[in-house]
Parts: sequence; structure tokens; C-alpha cells
Amino acid sequence: MFRVLVVHGPNLNMLGVREPARYGVLTLSELDDRIIEIGKKEGAKIETFQSNLEGELINKIQSSHGTFDGMVINPAGLTHTSVVIRDAILAVGIPTIEVHLSNIYSREDFRKISLLSDIVVGQITGLGHHSYFLGVIGILAHLKTQASVTTKDKK
Amino acid sequence: MFRVLVVHGPNLNMLGVREPARYGVLTLSELDDRIIEIGKKEGAKIETFQSNLEGELINKIQSSHGTFDGMVINPAGLTHTSVVIRDAILAVGIPTIEVHLSNIYSREDFRKISLLSDIVVGQITGLGHHSYFLGVIGILAHLKTQASVTTKDKK
Amino acid sequence: MFRVLVVHGPNLNMLGVREPARYGVLTLSELDDRIIEIGKKEGAKIETFQSNLEGELINKIQSSHGTFDGMVINPAGLTHTSVVIRDAILAVGIPTIEVHLSNIYSREDFRKISLLSDIVVGQITGLGHHSYFLGVIGILAHLKTQASVTTKDKK
Amino acid sequence: MFRVLVVHGPNLNMLGVREPARYGVLTLSELDDRIIEIGKKEGAKIETFQSNLEGELINKIQSSHGTFDGMVINPAGLTHTSVVIRDAILAVGIPTIEVHLSNIYSREDFRKISLLSDIVVGQITGLGHHSYFLGVIGILAHLKTQASVTTKDKK
Amino acid sequence: MFRVLVVHGPNLNMLGVREPARYGVLTLSELDDRIIEIGKKEGAKIETFQSNLEGELINKIQSSHGTFDGMVINPAGLTHTSVVIRDAILAVGIPTIEVHLSNIYSREDFRKISLLSDIVVGQITGLGHHSYFLGVIGILAHLKTQASVTTKDKK
Amino acid sequence: MFRVLVVHGPNLNMLGVREPARYGVLTLSELDDRIIEIGKKEGAKIETFQSNLEGELINKIQSSHGTFDGMVINPAGLTHTSVVIRDAILAVGIPTIEVHLSNIYSREDFRKISLLSDIVVGQITGLGHHSYFLGVIGILAHLKTQASVTTKDKK
Amino acid sequence: MFRVLVVHGPNLNMLGVREPARYGVLTLSELDDRIIEIGKKEGAKIETFQSNLEGELINKIQSSHGTFDGMVINPAGLTHTSVVIRDAILAVGIPTIEVHLSNIYSREDFRKISLLSDIVVGQITGLGHHSYFLGVIGILAHLKTQASVTTKDKK
Amino acid sequence: MFRVLVVHGPNLNMLGVREPARYGVLTLSELDDRIIEIGKKEGAKIETFQSNLEGELINKIQSSHGTFDGMVINPAGLTHTSVVIRDAILAVGIPTIEVHLSNIYSREDFRKISLLSDIVVGQITGLGHHSYFLGVIGILAHLKTQASVTTKDKK
Amino acid sequence: MFRVLVVHGPNLNMLGVREPARYGVLTLSELDDRIIEIGKKEGAKIETFQSNLEGELINKIQSSHGTFDGMVINPAGLTHTSVVIRDAILAVGIPTIEVHLSNIYSREDFRKISLLSDIVVGQITGLGHHSYFLGVIGILAHLKTQASVTTKDKK
Amino acid sequence: MFRVLVVHGPNLNMLGVREPARYGVLTLSELDDRIIEIGKKEGAKIETFQSNLEGELINKIQSSHGTFDGMVINPAGLTHTSVVIRDAILAVGIPTIEVHLSNIYSREDFRKISLLSDIVVGQITGLGHHSYFLGVIGILAHLKTQASVTTKDKK
Amino acid sequence: MFRVLVVHGPNLNMLGVREPARYGVLTLSELDDRIIEIGKKEGAKIETFQSNLEGELINKIQSSHGTFDGMVINPAGLTHTSVVIRDAILAVGIPTIEVHLSNIYSREDFRKISLLSDIVVGQITGLGHHSYFLGVIGILAHLKTQASVTTKDKK
Amino acid sequence: MFRVLVVHGPNLNMLGVREPARYGVLTLSELDDRIIEIGKKEGAKIETFQSNLEGELINKIQSSHGTFDGMVINPAGLTHTSVVIRDAILAVGIPTIEVHLSNIYSREDFRKISLLSDIVVGQITGLGHHSYFLGVIGILAHLKTQASVTTKDKK
Repeated sequence: MFRVLVVHGPNLNMLGVREPARYGVLTLSELDDRIIEIGKKEGAKIETFQSNLEGELINKIQSSHGTFDGMVINPAGLTHTSVVIRDAILAVGIPTIEVHLSNIYSREDFRKISLLSDIVVGQITGLGHHSYFLGVIGILAHLKTQASVTTKDKK
Repeated sequence: MFRVLVVHGPNLNMLGVREPARYGVLTLSELDDRIIEIGKKEGAKIETFQSNLEGELINKIQSSHGTFDGMVINPAGLTHTSVVIRDAILAVGIPTIEVHLSNIYSREDFRKISLLSDIVVGQITGLGHHSYFLGVIGILAHLKTQASVTTKDKK
Repeated sequence: MFRVLVVHGPNLNMLGVREPARYGVLTLSELDDRIIEIGKKEGAKIETFQSNLEGELINKIQSSHGTFDGMVINPAGLTHTSVVIRDAILAVGIPTIEVHLSNIYSREDFRKISLLSDIVVGQITGLGHHSYFLGVIGILAHLKTQASVTTKDKK
Repeated sequence: MFRVLVVHGPNLNMLGVREPARYGVLTLSELDDRIIEIGKKEGAKIETFQSNLEGELINKIQSSHGTFDGMVINPAGLTHTSVVIRDAILAVGIPTIEVHLSNIYSREDFRKISLLSDIVVGQITGLGHHSYFLGVIGILAHLKTQASVTTKDKK
Repeated sequence: MFRVLVVHGPNLNMLGVREPARYGVLTLSELDDRIIEIGKKEGAKIETFQSNLEGELINKIQSSHGTFDGMVINPAGLTHTSVVIRDAILAVGIPTIEVHLSNIYSREDFRKISLLSDIVVGQITGLGHHSYFLGVIGILAHLKTQASVTTKDKK
Repeated sequence: MFRVLVVHGPNLNMLGVREPARYGVLTLSELDDRIIEIGKKEGAKIETFQSNLEGELINKIQSSHGTFDGMVINPAGLTHTSVVIRDAILAVGIPTIEVHLSNIYSREDFRKISLLSDIVVGQITGLGHHSYFLGVIGILAHLKTQASVTTKDKK
Repeated sequence: MFRVLVVHGPNLNMLGVREPARYGVLTLSELDDRIIEIGKKEGAKIETFQSNLEGELINKIQSSHGTFDGMVINPAGLTHTSVVIRDAILAVGIPTIEVHLSNIYSREDFRKISLLSDIVVGQITGLGHHSYFLGVIGILAHLKTQASVTTKDKK
Repeated sequence: MFRVLVVHGPNLNMLGVREPARYGVLTLSELDDRIIEIGKKEGAKIETFQSNLEGELINKIQSSHGTFDGMVINPAGLTHTSVVIRDAILAVGIPTIEVHLSNIYSREDFRKISLLSDIVVGQITGLGHHSYFLGVIGILAHLKTQASVTTKDKK
Repeated sequence: MFRVLVVHGPNLNMLGVREPARYGVLTLSELDDRIIEIGKKEGAKIETFQSNLEGELINKIQSSHGTFDGMVINPAGLTHTSVVIRDAILAVGIPTIEVHLSNIYSREDFRKISLLSDIVVGQITGLGHHSYFLGVIGILAHLKTQASVTTKDKK
Repeated sequence: MFRVLVVHGPNLNMLGVREPARYGVLTLSELDDRIIEIGKKEGAKIETFQSNLEGELINKIQSSHGTFDGMVINPAGLTHTSVVIRDAILAVGIPTIEVHLSNIYSREDFRKISLLSDIVVGQITGLGHHSYFLGVIGILAHLKTQASVTTKDKK
Repeated sequence: MFRVLVVHGPNLNMLGVREPARYGVLTLSELDDRIIEIGKKEGAKIETFQSNLEGELINKIQSSHGTFDGMVINPAGLTHTSVVIRDAILAVGIPTIEVHLSNIYSREDFRKISLLSDIVVGQITGLGHHSYFLGVIGILAHLKTQASVTTKDKK
Repeated sequence: MFRVLVVHGPNLNMLGVREPARYGVLTLSELDDRIIEIGKKEGAKIETFQSNLEGELINKIQSSHGTFDGMVINPAGLTHTSVVIRDAILAVGIPTIEVHLSNIYSREDFRKISLLSDIVVGQITGLGHHSYFLGVIGILAHLKTQASVTTKDKK
């Protein structure tokens, strides 16, 4: 049973409140419930975490070392500016998928650059809550493939 | 029942042959079978198409007008250079998800720019064959949401 | 009597279908009829050609060598990316006017660069169908001026 | 009967004197006569204006508010540097076509950027005196289309 | 009676200590007293807040939703790097004026770019403590104008 | 009693006429009246000046040498292009505040660069007519501070 | 006996017709004859191919997999724009030399960037028909060196 | 006897007043006297002209056609922004030397670009009033060389 | 006896855990012991501090005002993004040396820019733990030189 | 019989010593022998020259004036930085081919720019020692073509 | 009596030989004679020096310390690339004028940047041999002004 | 006992003479004495070398192959321009530390780029003579670490 950490960056605690036309009416806690449910259906245990402080996000990511098998992260506005979150993910070294609710390529220019995109397994953007749902399914598919490869290698 | 067109750009006919370490051992026709199967499971009808000629891809995309409800496209190397495919998608105006087998953000610099990314619903990269599978699931989720919104509006 | 080739690039076969608010309700064939009619009025013979394949456009342009006196071309999305169409026009060496239905300078940034504009006689943009009509009148005026200069030189 | 203002920017008073090989042997006043004549033929009343002072051009453009239905402007060297002429055209808000005698895209790099091109109806370049003639025909076609649309709307 | 939040970014707690030649001898708490006093004179209630932690600034800005009518913010060094503060302001959606003690346009190049300037009502720079004072007067003038417009709309 | 020159750049004579939705319904002369009134209330004598000619603006600025103690300038479209106005302000050397009616940072890219911003005392943008009102209050506050410093230095 | 594919890109069918001053008087078929002859002399079997359609060039390159030992390619105008030809060469993975008739570094700026140059063995430019002749000699020398290294490795 | 026009751009009427530490204590009229005196010594007739209006500078330059043999111009702040002065010099086509009092390469970045430098005979910068004096000597040397070449050609 | 503050930025608490091949097997606390020991040998008192929160690093740096004579800082990933740490160092104004374990110039492009490098005394990179050791020796040498200069000045 | 100068730039004296995996095991003198031999076979006289001093390379190139008919040059690291070698080749004006052992387009970015490439006849890269061999054959082919053209012109 | 060093950079020994159409028929030694003669007439002692080796130019410049009062330098192709010549001039600290025979602003783009221009007194370009002659007159004028200022200061 | 080569680039022979305020009063030979002394104390043999000729520096670096174990280099102005020194260091392949007396990041922009920094072990800047002293200590620490690793590997 895989354990997956789902990390929400700054301002995502405003989900359902902030620009519902753009981000939907679900609150963060309702979204988390649905993510966990999808995890269960796929046979995985999911923990979610949100903070507005970059440093607390780093602390959480660091703590995932040895505790989680994969990560799904929506770094929100930090996507474009945070070298330290990049470094934290590199440090713990667990497979990660980057997700975004909105299509970051159809907004301001500075949102087109992600400081994570080249070190994650992959990126899913623009599909609203489904970005998270597919992110969870995707990271589990990735972990299963890895596991089967490792098992083969061991034989 | 939604109808979805899955479009493969140039060189994807080499799947299974070309750089299997990077792209997997499945041939394109085997991949297409699995995509269609996933479509069935989700209650959708899927057609796939591949060409090495940009103009034939445009012809196919144009023909989707009125025939398909959604599109999943992997434009391959044309992602970074083809204004005309962008224009074809704009012309037919059906919701589209852009997918990539590899993580285009961890390769050459010129692969980091997509001429489609700002006009599609969303983008899924780096998850191998799963980029397609999640693309299909994602476009269907998007179409269902749209449909329910439209139904509500009508009432 | 001058012979003029009018070339339409990719997606222009969608005219009247695609974004009528932007491009008008005339279909391509109706537009072609009006272009030919204007040619007649000005005492010129016009042939029109459309393709979604860059290579077929090149084949047509190459064939104009010795068959046509002037060209009016709307390269559509290829305007911004096609060195090979530029090379084809250079190769046949007949006077050409570049036209665009919409104002390419008030759209996406990548539409502001034309790979043809410095090798054509001139450019007409933003006047809808009239871009073509004025293009035909313009190329004929240019051919007449050239002819009168050449005649003078001969004396 | 439409009223059209034709504006000539700095140095165009040197026409016929300055680089005749490039700009032709017609003087500005001869050119103006031919422009007015074309206007008459198309059933329009044309006034022409030239100044070497950017501020006087602005004064004239501002005065067109309520007096003219359309404008054809060749801002000459100010094309590439004058935000204030752009602002004047925006302020009066009458439809404008930008014209250039020479092909500005085949000259110095700084001539490739126009500070007007994205706010005018369209642009005509490289056709010598015909740039003006087609400009007048073009703006009248545009005004007629607008008028017919407005009339329909009123019904 | 309007309620206005005044937010001070990192290092502004050093006011009066840090580079007095550049920033004046007033401490932050003395400055806050004067800001509040100006608010009173203008008939507004002002609360001030300072933190060196970007995340705490976000928490405070989020909490202003429903509690404050306007905001005056000096994001200090975060002006040039913080997408997340931009997102927080967008999320709460209350009118905001950006202020700076020094003239950010006459210092290092990286200080010339503000990640907030295009989403705030306006910006006031270079006037020392008066940047804050005018910021408060400005936001109140803006709120009054808005209120009178809304009242008119209601009638 | 301080004397302040308020300078309006090109097209500001169109205030109240030009884009009222953006710039308000006050005419320039009504605005000038209110500016002068605010000056009076603050115990200052204000003169206003507008021209569409860059050179006349320079003549006026040069004449302020010895006649005025401070300047408030809205260079309008010349903000982004005029080195000569910058040089004129440097030449007379009187403290100046740059103001803009609209938020120049939320408009076209070329409006984001001011050729004055690094040599003025400060800049106020986006607050409509209040940009001028606060500009007058700001320059007077600046002049008073300067005066008190000079007085201290003399003792 | 090595088998080498020689690929000519768009417009090279115009050789001898197009700008003879720049490209020489030989037609493409005469050039091909001489290339094949040189191949024979060096003990190699050469096949040549030309198309104006990018997609057909890709089809041909893909078909070289297992059929040819090396390739000499003059992608003409596609050199600077075609990611898909690059991908096709990567996919088949046979050693390739890029050749150009003219010196691409002494022409337009956009011709200075080749999308192939970093993945080919080497590049030969500016030597007219000799670029091809030396390309054939070069690829054969490369193949011989490879073969001898492989043979040594086997021992 | 050569006739030389010496043109001073905007703000140079402030010489002796403006920043004497940088530009010296001579007034413009005193400088003009010395320039004319040097002209006399070299056997040339010099006329000087200053204006703060770009358009008047153009008018003067245009009038030099047939009246002057050479020009020395200090365009001051217009050096970096005026395409129209460039065009005026091109139009009249008389040999010109560009001079600057200060070293424009050791000041703000935008002063490093001259829109004239590539079309003038040469440029002299940084030598204070001597930039003008050497400019006059230089243009006369240039005119003499030209004259002797022309004379030889005639024989 | 000099007092030196040694500051470790985000993720350095992972030392010995994170990428040992790149950063060595020493844990942060073992490294701190060796740094303190070197300080002792050189006759200096050293305090070390680490945090993953930018704001806490700022708080610590601010508190060094009056408590420490010099600082050695490894800002880790914040090196390239933190204007606020730069401002904090400027605010306290104590001599600082920037150190990096790895060679930041042989990694990703964004690591080549340091927002501190121009305001620190100097920078030491690429020498692993020795970057810190030499940093301590370097700052002490700098403080001694400063002290001897100040002493001389006093005499 | 043509005389050809072959020039080797800095560090090429390390051939066979320096990075043999990249540059092969031949020493420079062995390579020179083979180059001379190829020259003989082609009926040409070849002289070779190497120096680590840019100035000595210039001296040698200058001395080729009248002594050599063509040049093959591998400027090594100076390719990307030496305007003076470019100027020397322009000064002597003899036809030159630029060669490189490695593929300069698949290495560091700064190696992609050659300061010679636009003034030489052509460029050959990436073919190891064969770059030189083909360079010699190429320059001789070029010289023969030139000679035959000149002979024809004389008749 | 002032002593002036005149320094010629690489390839200037080819004067009279190299591109006479561009640089004139005078040899370097003839040019030197005329420069020395002009120096005499102005009451100055001039020494000239030329080398193709950057290092020898540095040696000469360094030796001017205490031996010369001023320098005139034409660094030729090194103008655009040599930081070390810049550093040598800074090290000896004697007033220097930079001269160029041709107009470096009307040639290749890379010739538009001088690494010296911001640290010299001034620059003279495009006047052929007269660039040197005016350079000598200019540096002497500069030295005389300096001397008179120093004398005044002493009184 | 390790042997270390210390290399000084151009103009460093002016130490103690050139800008003592910036570089200190020690002459180069006094500095060399202190460097050698530090080497002795650390049990290493040091040789120093200075030249103003890039080519002589290359010759010396090449000769270090087999004679020295490590290198400390201050390439001075060549840091930013010399690909050939980079190539020489790559060719000999001995561990090198780059040092600078001044802080190259707080000077001109062009000094911020080092062509060596990504291929050396590390870089030390801004610490005056101590940059050299720490450079020697650093390279010896590096060599000892390498030696102990190698010794372990052998066991």
C-alpha cells in the first residue's frame, strides 16, 4: 500500500472563497476529502498538508523522507519563485507530480516558468480539481511501474 | 456518450522502436488499443489518428468539427513550432488536452515552449503512456462538467 | 494581360465556418469568386489555390515560375514559421504581396513576426476580405509600373 | 459622403526631392492632388495635412474629432517612436489606416516596430504612392461596412 | 467609516535604526501612530501590521476579507519576488495602494519590477513617510468614489 | 509661500472628452481649478501649463528656473520616450513629482518604462485626478522638509 | 560496402533554375549523379531523395532504419525550424552529416541557428556542390572509423 | 569657401547655466562665437542654429539642402530617440559629423545608442567645447578630401 | 575577541542526509562543531544558526546588530531569490562573507545569480565544508585589517 | 600548384595529450604530416603553423599575403573571441576554410558563435582529423573553381 | 611641453596594404610621421607604437606611467574584446582618447561595443587619418585645460 | 609534499602601484613571498608566475602537466574573455581554484561572468591578498581529500 503526501501551497486555504469562478466552489477540506477517497479506491494512503509559509512547506517535505512513497504538490504562487522547495524535493528524493488547478500557460507571463517542472516526474495543469485527482492516479501508476521494475531487477 | 479524437504527431509511429528506454516498449497500435479500452470503460468512443505530415493532422483536426466532442493531442515535435495546428484547434473550437510522453521541461530549451498550451484546457506531461490515459479521463471529466453546467443553464 | 496567382495558406478553407465574428461569413469559394471578378475588372487573369500542406503550397509557388506575373499570398499561420515558403518565393522570383485578413499586430506576440515581409513588395493587413481585393489591385499597379519602366529602358 | 483626413508625418514635404529612386518623382502636393481625386471618384471628401512637428500632427488629429469619419496616416519616422500620436488617435477614436511608401520590414531593424499598428484598422506598406491610394479605398470600404452594420443594428 | 489595513513588509521593523539617512529617524511604531492619526482626521479606522515572514503577511491579508475596506501595503523587498502576496491580494479582492519609502526606480535594477503594481489601484514611491500618508488619503478617496458610484447605481 | 508648476503633457487637453470611462468627466480647465484650489489650501501658489508640443514643454520647464520651487508633471505619452524632457528637468534642477492618471503598470508593456522616474523625487500613479492632488501635497511636504533641513544647517 | 542516404530538403528541386549565381548551374539530377559517382569511387552505395514536404522527408528518414548505414542531409529552409526532422534522425539513430550549399552564417540571422547541428556528427557549409561531395567522403570516413573501433572492441 | 551648418539640439540653450561643472561656463552664444571664429580661421563660413523643438530642427536641416556643404550636429537628448532627424539628414544628404560635449558612453545606458551614428561621417564625444571645434575642423577636412577626389575624377 | 555569526539557509539541516555524494557525510551539528573549533583556534567566538524559514533568518540577522562583528552566511536556495535577506544584511551593516558548499557556477543557470554577492565582502564557493572554514578565517582576517585601520585613524 | 597555409590555434600543440577520448591519439606533428601528404596527393604545397599567442597567429596570417593561395584555419578557443584574427584574414583577403575537430554546436553555448564564420568560404566541424583533411580538399576545389572562372573571364 | 603616446592595435601595420579603399593609401610609418609633425606644431612630443600582441600593447601602456602625459589609442579589433587593455589604462591612469579610422557604428554589430569608451576622455571615429590628427589636438587641449585648472587650484 | 602553481594574469605586475586604495600597497613580489611562505607552513612547494601575454600564460599552464598537483589562478581581466585559458586548464586537467583580489560581483557588469568558474573546483573573491592565501589553503585541502579518497580506493 503506497503512502502519498499531497501538498498545497500558499492561498489554497482560500479555495471556495477565492475567485470561485476560476477555482470552483469546493473548500480545501472538501477537496482533501475527495482526494483521500480517490486514494483509498486506488489502494493508497494519502495525507494532505497546506501552509502559507514556504518554510513550513519545506519542513513537511523534508519529513516525508522515509514516511511517504510519492508526492503530489501544488506549490501555487511559489511554483515560479521557490528554489528552496525545489531543493527540499531534491533532498528527500521521492517521486513527485506537480499539479495546478488553472492553466498556468494562459495567464501572466511569469506563471509560465516553473522552478520544479524539470525535476518532477511530470506536470498536470488546467483541469481544476481533476488536476489533483489525476495527479494521485498518476503518481500511483508511476510507483507501481517503479516497483515492478525493481522487483524484476532483484530477480 | 462522448466521442473523443486522439491525435498523435510526427514520429510517434516509431513508438516501441524509437528509444524504448525513454518511451517504453509498446507499439503505437498497442497503445491505441489501450487508449480505446480506457475510453470504453469510461463510456466514451475514441478514434485515434497519426501522421507525420502537419497538413494531414490539420485536415483531421478540421474534420473533427461536429464529429467529436473532445480531443487529446500529442503534437510531438510540432508542439514547439506549429502555429497552423494551433489555428486548426482554434478553428474547430472543441475542448482539447495536450499530452506528452516525456517531461518536456527537463529536455532541450526549445521543448519548453508549447504553441498550444495557452489555448488548450490543460496539459499533462512526463507520465509515459499514462499521459494519454489520464488525458482521456481528464477530457471526459471536463466534458461532463461542461454538460452539467449547460444543463443547469437551460433550466 | 497580367496573370496573378492568389495563394491561401492552412485553415483558410475554414473561412465562413471558423470564427465568423473575426473572419466574416463568406466561404473561401465565394471569396475566390469575388477576387477573380476584381481581377477581371482590372484586366487580369487570376488563379486561386489553397492547401493545408506547406509542401503543396511550395509546389504551387514553384510552378508559378513562367506561368504567373505576380502573386498575392496569405500564408496564414505559416507566415511566422516557414522559411521554406520564403525560399520558394525567392526561388521563383516573381513580385508578391503578402495579405492578412486580421490585423496581425493586435494579436499574439508571435504573430508580429513575418518571415516573408522583408522579401515581398509590400504587405496589407487587417482589412478583412478587402486585404485580398487591395492586394490584387496593388500587385497589378506594381506590375504596370514595372512594365512601363522596362519599356522605357528598352528605348 | 465620408470625410477622410490624410496625414503625412515629418520629412514627407521632401517627396520628389528626397531619394527619388526610393520614393518616386511626385512632389507632396502632386501626390495630394491624386489622393483627393481618388477620394472624389469613390464619393468621399479628403483633406490632407503635413507637418514636421509631432505636436502639430497631434493638434490636427485631435481636431478631426467630429469633423472626419476616417483617417489615413503615414507617420513616417514617428511610426517607431511616438506614443503621443498613438494616444491622440485613441483619444479621437476614428477608424485609421496606417500606410508607408517603402517596405518598412526590409530596412533598418528599428523600422520594424510600429507603435500604431495594433490600434489601427490595418496597415499597408511598400507600395509607393499606391499605399496611399489603397489606404483611401480601404478606409472607405471599412466605413461603408461599419455603416451598413450600424444601420442593420438600428432596425 | 472606512476601515483600512496598513501592511509593512520585512525589515521595516528596523525603521529609525536602519540607514536613517535614507529612511528617516522615525521608528515604525512612531510612524504607525502618525498613520493612524491621519486616518482619524480623514474619518477612517486604521490597523497596522508588520512581519518579516511572507507567510504571516499572507495570513494577515487573507484575514482582511470582510474586515477591511481598503489596504495600503509596503511589501519592501518582497515587492520584487512575491507571487504569493500578489495572489493573496487577488484572493481577498479589496482595493489596495502600493507604497514605497524610497524611489525604487533610482536604485538597483531588480527593484524596478513590482509583482503587485499591475493589480493594485495605484502606486506611490519616493516620498518617505509621506508615501504612507498619501497612500492612506489616496485609498480613502478611492473608496469614497467607489461608494458614491455604487450608491448611484443602486438608485 | 511655495510656488509650484504643474505641467500636463500631450493629449491631456482632451480630458473629459477622451475615454471618459478611463479618465473621468472633468475637463482640463476644471481639473486645473481644483489643483489650484488645493494649492491655496496648502498655502502654495500654483501655475498650470499644457502643450501637445514636446519643445514647448521644454521651454516652459526651462523657464521655471528661479520662478518655481517645485514641479508636478504628467508627461503623458512622452513619459516613455522623451530624453529631452528628462534633460530639461535635470537642467533646471528643481524637485519634481511625476504623476499619472491611470495605472501605467497595468497597460501596454511600453508604458511600464518611464524615462523620468529615476530622477524625480517620487511617482504617483493610478489614482485619477487624485494623482495630481496628492502630487501637489507631496511636493509641498517635500519642499517643507527640505526647507527645515536647510534652516537647521544654517544655524 | 556502406549504404548512404542523401536527403535534399524543400526547394532543392529548383537547383540550376533558382538563383544560379548563388547555387550553380547543375540541376538536382545532375548533382545526384555526381554524388552517386563519388560514392562508387569510395566503395559505397548511395541513394538520393528530395521532397518539398517535411512529412515525406520524415517518412524517408524513418525508413532508413536498418537500410542505411549513414546519412548526408541538406534540410534547406527546414534546418532552422524543424524539430520533427531532428526527432526523426534521433529516432532512427544513424550517423548523419548536415550539409549546406551556401554559407548559412553569412546570410539572414535566422539562418544561423540549426536545429540539427548539435545531434549530427558534423556540419559542412558554404562549399557549393562540394559540401555534398565532402559530406559523402566524411560520413564514409566516420563509418570506417566506427567499424574499426567496433571490430577492435569485439576482439 | 565651404559653408557649414552647426546645429544644437534641445536644452543646449541652457549652456553655462545648466550643470556648469559638467558642461563648462561658456554660454551658447559665446560658444557659437568661438565656433564661427574657428570656421573663419579654416576659411569656412559657419551658421549656427538651436531649437528645443525637434520639428524646427528638421525644418532647418531640410533648408540646408543646397545652402550648406557640411553639417556638425549635437542632437543632445534627441540623439537616442529621433528617427525623424535621422531621416531629415538622409533626405538632404550632406556630410555630417555628430558631436557631444560629454562622454555619452560613461552615462546612462540609454545614452549609449545613437540613432544617427551609422549614417554620419563620424562622431566626436567627451571633449567639451572641443568636440564642436574638432567637429568643424573634421568636417572641413572631409569636404576638402571629397573635393580633391571629385576634381581628380573630372580630369 | 571577535564574535562571528554563521548562518545556514533552508535545507542545510539535511546535511549528511541529503545527497552525501555531493555534500559529504558530516551532519550539520558535526559541521557546526568544527566551525566553532576553528573559530576558537583563531581566537573568535562563533554562534551558528539554521532555519528553513526566510523570515526567521531575517530575524536572526537583524538581531546580530551590536551583538556580532562579522557574519558568514550560506543562504542556500535563497541566494538566488531573496531580496529581503539582502535588505536585512544592508540594515545591520556588519561585514559578511557568502559561502557555498558546491560550485554554484557549474549547476543550473538560475544558481549563477546571487542577490547578495555585490553587497558582501567576498564569496567562497565549491570547497565543500572548507568553504565555511575559509569563510571564518577570511572574515576574521577582514575584521583584523579593519580594526588596525581604525586604530591608525584614531591616532 | 596551389600553396595552402594550415593554421592551428592555441592548445592544439596538446593534441594526443589533451583529452584523447575527444580529440584522438595523433600528435600535432603526426597530424601535420598527414595533412601535408593529402596536399601532395592533391597537387598542392602545404605549410602548417601553430601558436598559443593570438598575436603570432596574426603575424603568420599577415605574412601569407602573396605567399599562399588559400588557408585552412582551426582557431580553437579564439574562434569565439578574436576580432583581430577576423581582421587579419580580411586584411590579407585570401580564401579561407574554418575547421573544428569537435562539433562546436554540441558543446557549451559560447562555442556556438564563431567570429569568423561569416567571412570564410565555409566551415567544417565535428569530423575529427577529417575536418582538416576535407578542409584541404575543399579549399583546393574552391581555388580550382576560382581559377577556371578567372581564366574564362580573361578570354 | 606635453608628451603623448600614440598606440596602434593589431593589423594597423597593414595600413596602406589592407583595404586601401576603406583605410587610405598611407602606410603606418607615413601616418606616424604626420602625427608626430602635428604634435610638433602643437608643441608636444609624440611617440608611436604598434603591435599585433595584446600583451605587448599592455606592456607599452604600463610603461607610459610617469613617462607620458596623455595617450591616443586605436585598439583596432581589441576595442571590442579586451578587458586587459582597459585595466592597463585604468592602472596607469593617464588621460586617453580612443580613435578609429572607420565609423565603427556603421559596420558589424559587434563593433558597436567598445570596452574602453566609458573610461576614456572621449572618442573620435570615422574620420580616417584625421581621427588620429584630431585625437592628438584633442588630448593636448584636454591636458592644457587640466593644467590651467590645477594651477588655479594651487593659488 | 604537494606542488602548487600560482598564476597571475595581466596587469597584476602593477600591484602596489595600480590603485593602491583598491588593491593594497604590497608589490607582486612581496605578495609572492607571502604566498610561498604560507605554502611552506602548509607543507607545500609553490611556484608563482605572472605575464601580460595570454599566450605565455597558456604555455605555463600547459607546462604544469605532470609538474604540479594543483593550481591557484587569478586570470585578472582575462577571466571574462579567455576561452583559450579555459581550454588550457581543461587540457592539463589539474585541480584549480580561481581567485580575485576585488569583489568582481560589485563592479562592471562584464566582470560578473567568468569563463572559468564552472570548470574550476571553486572560486574565492573579494578578500584582497587573503583571496590568494585562502586559495592556497583551499587547494591543499582539496588535494589532501582527493589523496585520502584515492588511497582508500586502492585498499
